[in-house]
Amino acid sequence: MKALAIDFGGTHATCGLVEDQTILAHETIDTDRAKSLRAVLPQVVDVFHRLANTKGLSLKECSAVAVGFAGLVDSRAGRVLATNEKYEDAKEIDLVAWSTQTLGLPLRIENDTRMALLGEFYAGAARGFTEIVMMTLGTGIGGVAMIDGKLLRGKHSQAGCLGGHFPVLFTGRKCNCGGIGCAEAEAAGWSLPLVVKDWPGVSQSALSKYPHVGFKELFEEAGRGDSVAVTIRDRCLNIWAAVAVGLIHAYDPEIVVMGGGVMQSADLIIPYVESYLRQYSWTPWGEVQVRVAELGNNAALLGAVPLLSER
Amino acid sequence: MKALAIDFGGTHATCGLVEDQTILAHETIDTDRAKSLRAVLPQVVDVFHRLANTKGLSLKECSAVAVGFAGLVDSRAGRVLATNEKYEDAKEIDLVAWSTQTLGLPLRIENDTRMALLGEFYAGAARGFTEIVMMTLGTGIGGVAMIDGKLLRGKHSQAGCLGGHFPVLFTGRKCNCGGIGCAEAEAAGWSLPLVVKDWPGVSQSALSKYPHVGFKELFEEAGRGDSVAVTIRDRCLNIWAAVAVGLIHAYDPEIVVMGGGVMQSADLIIPYVESYLRQYSWTPWGEVQVRVAELGNNAALLGAVPLLSER
Repeated sequence: MKALAIDFGGTHATCGLVEDQTILAHETIDTDRAKSLRAVLPQVVDVFHRLANTKGLSLKECSAVAVGFAGLVDSRAGRVLATNEKYEDAKEIDLVAWSTQTLGLPLRIENDTRMALLGEFYAGAARGFTEIVMMTLGTGIGGVAMIDGKLLRGKHSQAGCLGGHFPVLFTGRKCNCGGIGCAEAEAAGWSLPLVVKDWPGVSQSALSKYPHVGFKELFEEAGRGDSVAVTIRDRCLNIWAAVAVGLIHAYDPEIVVMGGGVMQSADLIIPYVESYLRQYSWTPWGEVQVRVAELGNNAALLGAVPLLSER
Repeated sequence: MKALAIDFGGTHATCGLVEDQTILAHETIDTDRAKSLRAVLPQVVDVFHRLANTKGLSLKECSAVAVGFAGLVDSRAGRVLATNEKYEDAKEIDLVAWSTQTLGLPLRIENDTRMALLGEFYAGAARGFTEIVMMTLGTGIGGVAMIDGKLLRGKHSQAGCLGGHFPVLFTGRKCNCGGIGCAEAEAAGWSLPLVVKDWPGVSQSALSKYPHVGFKELFEEAGRGDSVAVTIRDRCLNIWAAVAVGLIHAYDPEIVVMGGGVMQSADLIIPYVESYLRQYSWTPWGEVQVRVAELGNNAALLGAVPLLSER
């Protein structure tokens, strides 16, 4: 199957022309300042035509368009249900109609982390598994689930995709989602600077020299032995591992795939989570495997074919 | 449908003869000191014969036996997978064979909280709903889920039944299950005395006069204004509400049914959880209802017919 795919992430949109487990061509649009999805869509059409031309194909040879979107999505109705401070107009846009009119193709939309899970299931780290949890650690925290080879969705498409919003610290910080102490509010890219800012003794720490502390800076300074950085890094590791426990207790997977930008530090994170799960998760049937995602930024694009092939 | 039902709880086993949504007769066996399930089974056979005689029925008129068990259960294989400091021999017992040999009836076993959810779904507070979470607050904390009218189970029967073991305080106490900071380790009947014992200033509190602090004592002393009791009670309310948020984010229900002994204080708990969810849960589609369980100790017995009717 050939398909068009778009991954609308936090800071850019990646458009791809895919055939089964292969990305034939792709191009990324910088959307950092795009508050409006409507403003980005004409560029997407241009990119798709360009990608098809490059490969000597016509859009008509593609079966459909698969869209991954960072937000709550109703894939059956083809609508965005809730966004998170980005593309606020997405809820008002009928993407199915847009695709029919501008590309002449049917369209299916799904949450971006669910698309990434489908990609890893179809062509990456979770091949051969049917019971899968995927966590993504980046600006936000994604946590999605597949049970018996099918994405878990529930009646309002909210089941199995809000793993970053299980409360792991009921006394914790306010989350973007409105909750309290969600994992995302305690150990994600957007919340890390808030955690660092309030940390006791941070003014004496090497972290204080950065205008913006990201996980790269945190892991580097912790590696150099800065004690505040070590403490905050270890706290993040514990939170991510606790999220994995929550997801395992919620969804009964055989594998946890961990992706997202923070997995640059996979060498540290994967063994930590593995060891934590061996000690603290309750799985009398055996041991859940922990693997780093294989497909990187391509995961959501490679989720296109399995999404479009769903019954 | 007529059926036999057993609810093996923490301190007693309730045996019932049920017909559809009605319990025709029931009798409770005190098992407080029974470490062994094998030791209790002959009494169960006696009770079933007595119940049937009372109603002028023969056991052969029953379709099957439904067993609710407080532990991890594989209902497809008919086995107990893991127990929690009670009936340690249950994993070794072939209950299906026992039932065939002693009662001449097929047997189906399921987790007791899942049975209670089925009961409330079939004949109680969740009638008419297909997207249901049930929480039980008692010696332990149960959290189970039904999606699209079916219990969520997963490959090893662990999905959708471990809501009391989502970590809500990743820095928290060791749980009976082996985890850290599970809701059950922070705000359940068995862990409450440990929390109270370690609470700063507890020796000045009215709670210190009790050899064992249960929720009854906690709520009473909090009601009288004891400041330590108020603080611990409010902490428990926050934890239970955070569990509800986690279950909603995990399973996308339209109703949360709350049962268990602690719901003696439903007048306080239900409005608190309702208000917390309105503020802190992320459900753009609308509001999740919160209701107190209607069937009390009968819920699991009334889950027998829907369990036995499952395809």
